[in-house]
Order: sequence, then structure tokens, then C-alpha cells
Amino acid sequence: MTLQIGVIGCGMIGRDHTRRIQQVLTGAKVVALSDVNQANAESVRDDFAPEAMIYATGEALIGSTDVHAVLVTSWGATHEPYVLAAIAAGKPVFCEKPLATTAEGARRIVEAEVAYGKKLVQVGFMRRYDAGYLALKKAVEQHTGAPILVHAAHRNPSVPEAYITPMAIHDTMIHEIDVLRWLLNDDYVSARVLYPRNAARSHTKLRDPQVVILETAKGVLIDVEIFVNCQYGYDIRCEVIGEAGAASLPEPMAIAIRLDAKNQSPILTDWKDRFVASYDVELQDFIVAAAKGSATGPTAWDGYAAAVAADACVQAQESGGDAVAIELSVRPALYN
Amino acid sequence: MTLQIGVIGCGMIGRDHTRRIQQVLTGAKVVALSDVNQANAESVRDDFAPEAMIYATGEALIGSTDVHAVLVTSWGATHEPYVLAAIAAGKPVFCEKPLATTAEGARRIVEAEVAYGKKLVQVGFMRRYDAGYLALKKAVEQHTGAPILVHAAHRNPSVPEAYITPMAIHDTMIHEIDVLRWLLNDDYVSARVLYPRNAARSHTKLRDPQVVILETAKGVLIDVEIFVNCQYGYDIRCEVIGEAGAASLPEPMAIAIRLDAKNQSPILTDWKDRFVASYDVELQDFIVAAAKGSATGPTAWDGYAAAVAADACVQAQESGGDAVAIELSVRPALYN
Amino acid sequence: MTLQIGVIGCGMIGRDHTRRIQQVLTGAKVVALSDVNQANAESVRDDFAPEAMIYATGEALIGSTDVHAVLVTSWGATHEPYVLAAIAAGKPVFCEKPLATTAEGARRIVEAEVAYGKKLVQVGFMRRYDAGYLALKKAVEQHTGAPILVHAAHRNPSVPEAYITPMAIHDTMIHEIDVLRWLLNDDYVSARVLYPRNAARSHTKLRDPQVVILETAKGVLIDVEIFVNCQYGYDIRCEVIGEAGAASLPEPMAIAIRLDAKNQSPILTDWKDRFVASYDVELQDFIVAAAKGSATGPTAWDGYAAAVAADACVQAQESGGDAVAIELSVRPALYN
Amino acid sequence: MTLQIGVIGCGMIGRDHTRRIQQVLTGAKVVALSDVNQANAESVRDDFAPEAMIYATGEALIGSTDVHAVLVTSWGATHEPYVLAAIAAGKPVFCEKPLATTAEGARRIVEAEVAYGKKLVQVGFMRRYDAGYLALKKAVEQHTGAPILVHAAHRNPSVPEAYITPMAIHDTMIHEIDVLRWLLNDDYVSARVLYPRNAARSHTKLRDPQVVILETAKGVLIDVEIFVNCQYGYDIRCEVIGEAGAASLPEPMAIAIRLDAKNQSPILTDWKDRFVASYDVELQDFIVAAAKGSATGPTAWDGYAAAVAADACVQAQESGGDAVAIELSVRPALYN
Repeated sequence: MTLQIGVIGCGMIGRDHTRRIQQVLTGAKVVALSDVNQANAESVRDDFAPEAMIYATGEALIGSTDVHAVLVTSWGATHEPYVLAAIAAGKPVFCEKPLATTAEGARRIVEAEVAYGKKLVQVGFMRRYDAGYLALKKAVEQHTGAPILVHAAHRNPSVPEAYITPMAIHDTMIHEIDVLRWLLNDDYVSARVLYPRNAARSHTKLRDPQVVILETAKGVLIDVEIFVNCQYGYDIRCEVIGEAGAASLPEPMAIAIRLDAKNQSPILTDWKDRFVASYDVELQDFIVAAAKGSATGPTAWDGYAAAVAADACVQAQESGGDAVAIELSVRPALYN
Repeated sequence: MTLQIGVIGCGMIGRDHTRRIQQVLTGAKVVALSDVNQANAESVRDDFAPEAMIYATGEALIGSTDVHAVLVTSWGATHEPYVLAAIAAGKPVFCEKPLATTAEGARRIVEAEVAYGKKLVQVGFMRRYDAGYLALKKAVEQHTGAPILVHAAHRNPSVPEAYITPMAIHDTMIHEIDVLRWLLNDDYVSARVLYPRNAARSHTKLRDPQVVILETAKGVLIDVEIFVNCQYGYDIRCEVIGEAGAASLPEPMAIAIRLDAKNQSPILTDWKDRFVASYDVELQDFIVAAAKGSATGPTAWDGYAAAVAADACVQAQESGGDAVAIELSVRPALYN
Repeated sequence: MTLQIGVIGCGMIGRDHTRRIQQVLTGAKVVALSDVNQANAESVRDDFAPEAMIYATGEALIGSTDVHAVLVTSWGATHEPYVLAAIAAGKPVFCEKPLATTAEGARRIVEAEVAYGKKLVQVGFMRRYDAGYLALKKAVEQHTGAPILVHAAHRNPSVPEAYITPMAIHDTMIHEIDVLRWLLNDDYVSARVLYPRNAARSHTKLRDPQVVILETAKGVLIDVEIFVNCQYGYDIRCEVIGEAGAASLPEPMAIAIRLDAKNQSPILTDWKDRFVASYDVELQDFIVAAAKGSATGPTAWDGYAAAVAADACVQAQESGGDAVAIELSVRPALYN
Repeated sequence: MTLQIGVIGCGMIGRDHTRRIQQVLTGAKVVALSDVNQANAESVRDDFAPEAMIYATGEALIGSTDVHAVLVTSWGATHEPYVLAAIAAGKPVFCEKPLATTAEGARRIVEAEVAYGKKLVQVGFMRRYDAGYLALKKAVEQHTGAPILVHAAHRNPSVPEAYITPMAIHDTMIHEIDVLRWLLNDDYVSARVLYPRNAARSHTKLRDPQVVILETAKGVLIDVEIFVNCQYGYDIRCEVIGEAGAASLPEPMAIAIRLDAKNQSPILTDWKDRFVASYDVELQDFIVAAAKGSATGPTAWDGYAAAVAADACVQAQESGGDAVAIELSVRPALYN
């Protein structure tokens, strides 16, 4: 009954998911590995999955009858063809973000999945599985009344020189784009970007910080601060204000120490630690659904919607503070 | 040595300041009262200042040799002439906000004061005297590094039907306009207003909530949520994010009770309770300075700057999300 | 109508109360000063009360017809005779703790006051006027149900070599002794003291920290940690657990700063800052009552009860962990 | 490579551990079940482990060559013989608390394990695996300086009539007994119990709440409030005060909601939710060690030490507030 998984892309995240499947989660094992650099695949095999076969290509891996389900953790540009191949093979596929590098590509996946007639794709938006966001969603549904405003922040201690302005959307804010859409059960209709002066630690190819303002179909106004050189820590905030009250994303558990005339609690500095538990939960969720031949969690449609919104945000980064419209195609019944 | 104060306007705030001077503060007494409705003045006299004389007009009160300093707590439209009369008489004057109902009026006061050659006017922006804002200003100056972003909120449980959209600026946000300018030691250069859908409890003449976005000369980007029908309480928030860290306005002291499976702390509901201690401090500050024949605290120039920014915000409320420029006249040397 | 106050003892606390009366509070002025070292009295006069007369003795000051009410802020051993003299003169008297250096002395004051037939004495237990303790008392009365347990701590960064074990009771825990009795509206019946190993920073004449355990007539069990060399700050804690819930003394307002991967709030280090606001309130309370010829607030009986409990605690410090009984004489009707 | 586990005792906890092994953890499967009431075993098999064999007796299960490792989750009185049998069979055994119903019984297990020459036993003290306690232990080791005092509380909303005074030790405080010994890396030398009046909700056979005071070999003084009818929630507290500072057990993550003039966070009410994550971690730890033929985590010696301390606490419950000595036999080298 063990789900046999093939992993395409054996970099940091593919390696980590393999470890997770082999050492933490239940109901699955990694039987196949593939990477453009075969040494990477061998290293992951040796460290975590000694019985796994190594395939020369992702397509070969997908085609193998040994492989029941596929993880796509390769370079972003390759996600779309691998996901399409998995759908063509009728195999559940977990794809790390982005689902595709363009909204058009994401829509092609949606269309393929709709044509196949069954959900097979889970996109790796792990925040939906975070206990804090789940508690926030429950509070919004049960206590605050209908949402009207959201204030959010995504702060990171620092980024390398290669990180340029559009990456603040595609690599960073993409998580807020998905999780707020899910939290509010709503769709975006416009995006706007405003900038303060640049932080001193930033550089010429990066406007940092920035404030992205989104409006939703139901009329919620969202502001998201993106500050990737904030120095002090990795800090994710989210407050939802509704008709009757407000609720805030809980801070990660942190010990309080009284020392040197200060009451002090540590703040995380590495993003990998912040949602570490939710990676386990999302992938276990995939395994359970894939064992039944289907997919659950964030859908291809969610991946498409995130891609469309992200494109609008990037366009808004260059629009001098004006709003850019966000328009989705018609939502297929498969995703209702 | 006791400073003899005359109070013009014996409504709620004039009454309360009289009580404060007579029963709480030191170094002053109320010797003169005036109100368009003489019964109000008599009532305040009877309750708090039995030895005070009642004057038929504010001008007569200002002109009395018994009166060393003046409190203007009358209807907003009368502030400008009373303050001008006090300056003409060379008497220190504490004026509740607004200093004048127009920026032009405020500038006339500035000009009169500059012509007089000495600061005589204190504007009633009490938040500058709040222990929380003082701690925040100190944290910004000592710890966070130069400010880049400010997130603020001004929430009030509910407002009456008579409260219309521009009042969200003139009566509510005016406090943030002044206190953030002071906190950042900066001036505004533009304002923008964005709206989510209206809260269900609002009405046709009030857009509520709204988000006002201000930019400063130094490049700080500020967002202020104004939500006057938020239901749950009177809640003032402010977070400043600087180059190295962030600091937040402390919450008012509140007891934590564990009861019924909840850890709960009360939230204030009446704005009068939130900054109650700072009214005492600001007026004591006025008394100390006035006893020396001058004024300290928020100046006529600050009142003028707030008026200009408020006018721009009101204009921005009708500008479809576009930025409206904020331009001050040249700051006279008296205010450097 | 101004209450004319005479201050006996012009050391740190007498000086500070004089400043308070002259510069902060209303309704009173200091007209008389006295100190065993006349230079102290002169210095306080010059700094804060230029019109005050200096008296050679406390008795002379009390006897002066200029003096309506008396503050006793002299050396502890002199409190009893000065308070008795004030009672004999029928003048309201505010006495810093201790009311007397022995329970017997405190009882003599009680008897004198009862014989006089009216409350004239206020003891300087300022914590009863602290906003935090007042909120805690209200929470206990309204929310937690009848108290069953109290956990408290009194921590101080460090003490000088001269501070020896019994001072942990007489100088430090005396505040908990009074405020918990008031908070619970109850009387103590026994005391017990337990010691962990000594803190490394302590010395041979000081057992530090220690845990004092009190039982009350209503059956409440109280543990109070006294740790006067705790290093990290001045920290006062109190949690009351009742039939239905628990409530905790609020922490002093403190700004939260996010910096260097830590969320940090300052902790006070100087005890003088912790209850600074309550000194103003207690003394204003004294002025209002004294102006009517009486006293309010902590009574001579409270001072006596605290002295009896403190004596038992000191005895318990040497009793090897055994309980020592606390017995009060019969409470005179004046104090019901 | 899968570890084949046999579960003895298919009540609530045996059922839950079987679910955990089959559905959550990795590296093991349940192949054998046993219960005095065979229907219980069948029910667990049907729900979670369809391929498991049912054995008539725990001894038969232990003896089966299919079984690599044993979980003892049966009635407390049977723990000792089953654990001894597992040791005799050389099989790793995870035993829920208590290891034995008497200290003598626990010592027999220690002796058997020492005779066998290798650690095979893990006792089910799950709090050592809780992220909060782990953070607290790290803070104590890195920041607070050497511990001097511990204040702890174990509060539970309510207990049934059958819960009597000694159960406050054996069933409730047993967790503090183990986890504080581990946290401090220390041993107890005495216990003392003090009682306030009984809570109104308690009954004649239960003194509730109570305060248990422990002293350690290193001189740490610990007070633990046990209140099993506290009404408001399941609430576990622990503060460690060391030479330089203090650290507190973090509260469980909880969302903060602002509603109805209150800032409120939920408190858990069911003890099963409080340490739910640590059950997973402890059992995974067992699986990893057992797969290598050994045991890790809380040892038989820890189980023995907890039993000795618990016996002393129960004796102290009847000793009128006097201290009862706690003496362990000599620690065998196996446990150093």
C-alpha cells in the first residue's frame, strides 16, 4: 500500500522532501530520483533513499510504472513541462512553486487537468498548512465578522545582490498572495505598489522595502509590507480586521528570558525554520490523497491565480503607484 | 506666583480642563470663564472654580488684567480670533485642536506670533505627552535606526450619524498627522486615500474604514487605518520600522485574567480614557511655560502644518486613490 | 483653603515628597521643615519650598499653628514618637513605613488614635494606589471568584553589603505583607520561610533568595519569593488564583523593540521607578482627607498588622521551615 | 527494515499509539496486539492495523518472533511484569507511566536492565520532548545562570469524584517530578506539601489545590501548584530563576482576537491537546533507537527516581507541612 514517489530535481528542496518522505512521514517511499546533474540525484539516493532508481530524465521517471506519484522540485522553468507530463500520465504531482513561470503556462496546466477530469496537482503553498494561519482562518470565520482590511508584513534579514525588485513578488510575496486569497476565500481585482526611500542596505537593482496593496472582489483592502533587508529577523505578520473584531497571526512559540534588564524572546532569522512544520503536513496531505489517485490542497487553479496576481504586482512595481487590474479567466467547475 | 487662567468655552473639554487646573495640577488657578451660553460658564464655576469671574465675551476675558494666560476650548470656528486676540494681548494661549478651521487661518496665527516675536501658542495635541509615544520616539532615536515605514491604526467603536467622511481626517486622524510628524521629526509631502468596501455599520455619508497613506520629505511611507465603527474597542496602534529594527507603541496597561478557557485583557472603549494622563501633562507643561510668559509643546507652526496635511487628506479622499501634494510655506526661524 | 504641611525628616524621601507637594500635587503647600541635620532642611527649603520655616525639632513643628498636617519621613526609630505627637495635637499625619519599629510601638499608635476617636494616620504603603494592583483587586472581586492561592515575587537587582537577612522582611517584603492583606481583605495566621541555596552574589549575613509562605484566616496560601540580588531587574509579580480563574498584576508599560533577532522590552532596574505614580496618588489622597481633618488610605491598624506579620516572618527565618503563628490583638471598631 | 511492534493494552492510549505508528510515524508498524479484553484489541486492529495478530496474553506477544519491540500501555499494575518480560526477551520496550506501581517494582526493572547490560526501556514521560520544555532547558543552560528557584503550576479544569488526594501526585504531578529533574539535571532530596482551604468544587477525599515543595541536591527550591479543579483551563507553567536571569515555559501558540472590548486568546481545556506533538516525537525516538536494538529517552532509572519522589510526596501529603526525605539507591553506571 506504500505510495511510490519519484522526485524530479535533487537540489536543496528535493533533498529535503526526500528526507521527509523517508524519515518523517508515513505511507510513502521515494523509489525514483532525477536531476539534470546526476551527481545530485546520487547524493540524495545515498543519503536518504538507497533503494531508489536514478532516471536520466524527468520524463523517464514520470513514465516508469514504479512511480505512482511525482514531486517536481526542479528549476522553476521546468515545472510546467513536468507537471503536464505527470497529468498526461494520470499521476498525482506535487509541484513546488511556481507552478509555471508565466500565468499562461499555469493556465495550460489548468486546462490539461480539466481535460483529464480530476485533480492531480498540488502546488507547494505550505502556509495553508501552518497551524497559525489555520487558527487565523478559523478566527476569521468564527469571530471577527466578514473581513474588511488586512495588514501583513513579510520581513527577511537580508538578501544577496542577485535578488532584484521583481523577485520581491515572485519569490517572496507569492506566499502572501496565495495564503491571503485562501484565508479570505476571495479573489484579487487590483494591485498597487508604493515605495518609501530605499533601505540603506539595499542596492540599485532592488527597491526595498515596498508596500503592495491588493483589492479583492469582495472589497477587502490588503496592504503587505515586503522588506527583505530588514536586518532584525524573519518576521511574518498578518492582521485581519472584520466587521466585529480583529485577529492576528500568532507569533511562533518563543521562550521569554529576563536578563540584563530586558524581557527578551528570540526572533527567527532563517525562513526555513518559520514554516518547517507545515512542510511535513502538506506533503503528508499529498501522500494521503495521491494514494487514492487524486490531489488535495492548493490546486493548479490556485497556482494560476497566484501567477496572474504576481504578474500584476510586478507590473504595478513600475506603474508609479497606480492600480493594475487583476483578471482571471473563468474558473472551471473542477475547482469549485 | 500662581498663574491666573481664563477659560473660553465651557463645554465638555473646557469643564474638564478647569477641573484639572483646580483639582489636579499645580501652579495655576482658573480666575475667568466665558461661554456663548453663560449657563455653561456658571455651571463650571459652581462645580470647580467658585472664585472665577464670568465674562460676557472671550475678548473681554482676554483683555482682563486678572487673566495671565488663556485656554481656548470653544467651538472650532472661534479658535482663530481668540488665539489672535491672545497674541495681540501678549498672553500665552493654549488652544484645543484645531488651531483654526483652515490652513489659511492657522497661517495667520503663525504670522501674528512671528510678528509678536515669541512663542505664545500651545496647540492641544496631547499625544506628544503620552508615555507610550514618548517611549516610542526614544526607541526610534536610539534603537531602530532611521525610520523607513510606519504602520498605524486609529480605531473607535462607533460614531453617530452626524459623523461624515471628512471628519475622519479633521477629528480623528488629525492626531496621527501631528504625532507622526513629531515622532519622525519630518514633514509630509503627499497624501493618498484608499477605501475597502464600507463596514456594514457605516452609512451613506461616511466611508469607513479608510487607509490614508502619507509620504514624508525624508522618504518615509506611512499607512494609517482609520476605522471609526470597528465595534470592538478604542485601539491605537503604531509601528515604526527603521534600518535596523522595529518598535511598537505599547498597549495601555491591562490586567490579564484567565477565565472560561480564555486569557483575556480588557480593551478601552472610550477615547477619553486612552490618553487621559497626557492631558494632565500637556496642561502642566503649559502652566510652567506660561508662568514664564511663553509657550512650549506643539506650536502654532505645528498646528498650521497639521491643517495643511489634513486639507490634503480630505482632498485625497475624493481623488480616486491618487496622491495629493502637501506643501508648506517656508518655516519661520521662530520654529526652528 | 490650602493645606499647610510640615515635613519631619528631609532625607531622600522627605525631599521627594516636598517636591511632589510643591510641584505636582494640588491643594497643599509645605510650610514647615525639620531635620536632625538642619542643613538637610535648608537644602530642601532652598530647592522646593522657599517660604517654608525651619523648625529645630519635629515636636516644635507639630506644635506650630501654621502646620495643619504632618509628614513623617525621618529615620524609622523616630516615627512612633512623632506620630503620637501628631495624634496628641489632633493633626493628620502621613507616616512613611514603618509606622513603628516594633509591633508594640505600632499598637501604641493604634491605641492613641482610638482614644482620640478619629482616624488621623495614613501609613505610606503606596502600592495600594498603584493602578496595577487596583486593577488586580478589581479583577479578584469581579472575576476570579474567591481567592485560594497567591504566587508573588519581589526581585531587586542587588543590595549593598549592609543588607542582612531580616531586612528582606522589614524593608522589602513589608510591601507584599501590606498589599496582599489589602488585596485579599484578609488577615495572616502563620508564616513560614524556606531557603534554596544562597545566590552566588549574596554574602554570609544574607540568605538570598528566600520564599516566605503565609496562610490567611480565610485559608488562602501565599508564597512570596524575595530575591534581592536577582541581577536582571526590579521585578514585582503577583498572581491570584480563585475559584473560577486567575489574574496577574500587569507588567509596567514597556516598549517592544525588534532588534538583533530578539523581541525585547526593557525591565526597570530601580525600585523608585516602579511605583512612582502611586506616590503622587497616595499623597494627593492624604491631602484631600487631611484638608477635612481626617485620614484615609492605609491605617495605623494596617501598620500594626504589617508589623506583627513582619515580626513573625523574621522569627520564621530562623525556624527551620516551621510555621510561626501570627496573632493580632482585637481590631478596634474605628478600623471596621 | 521496518520495526515490528507489539502493543500490550488496547485502551485509549494503546489505541492512540497504534494510530500514531500506523498513520503518522515512520519506520515501524504494529504487528501484534493484546488486551485483557480481546474485543479492545480487535477494535484497534480493525481501525488501524488490519494485518496485526492478536495474542491472548502480553507474555505470548512478547515471546513472538514477529515482535521486535514492545509498547506497554496496559493497566498500571501490569507494567512491571510486562517490562521485565520484555527485558528477559532482550526486546526494547516503551512503557507508559508508571514504570511500576511501587518504587521497589521500578528498582527491580532497573536491576533487570542492569543485569541485561544494555538500555532497553523508555518510560513515557513525553514532556521531555515538548518544544517548550526543550527551549526552556536550553535557556537555563545558556542564559539564566545556575538555577536557584523554580515556580511551577499544573492546573486542570476538573476531575471526577474518583480522583483522590494521592492521585494528585501519582497521576498529575508525576510529570513535573520527571521533567523538572531532567530540566535541572538534579535529584530531589526532600518533599513538603502545603494546603490552602479546599476549592469549593473539590470533595471530601480530595485536597485541592495543594502546593508541593521540593528541594534538590544542588539546593534548588521548587514549588509546584497542583490544582485539578481550577475550572478555567488546562494550564502548565514553569519559571526557572537562576543566578543571572529567569526563563519561563512558553505558552502554547494561541491566536489573539480583539472582540467585545477584550483582547482574548484561547486556553486549552483538554490535557491531551497540550503535549500532543511530543507524543509523536517520543515514540519516533523510541522507534529509531529500538530499530538499533536499544532504548533512549527517559530511562528505567528515571522511572525509579520518579517513583521514589512520588512516594515521598504522597507521604508528605499527610505530614502536616513537614519535609519528607527523598533517598535514591546508588545510580548504576548504565545510567551515567
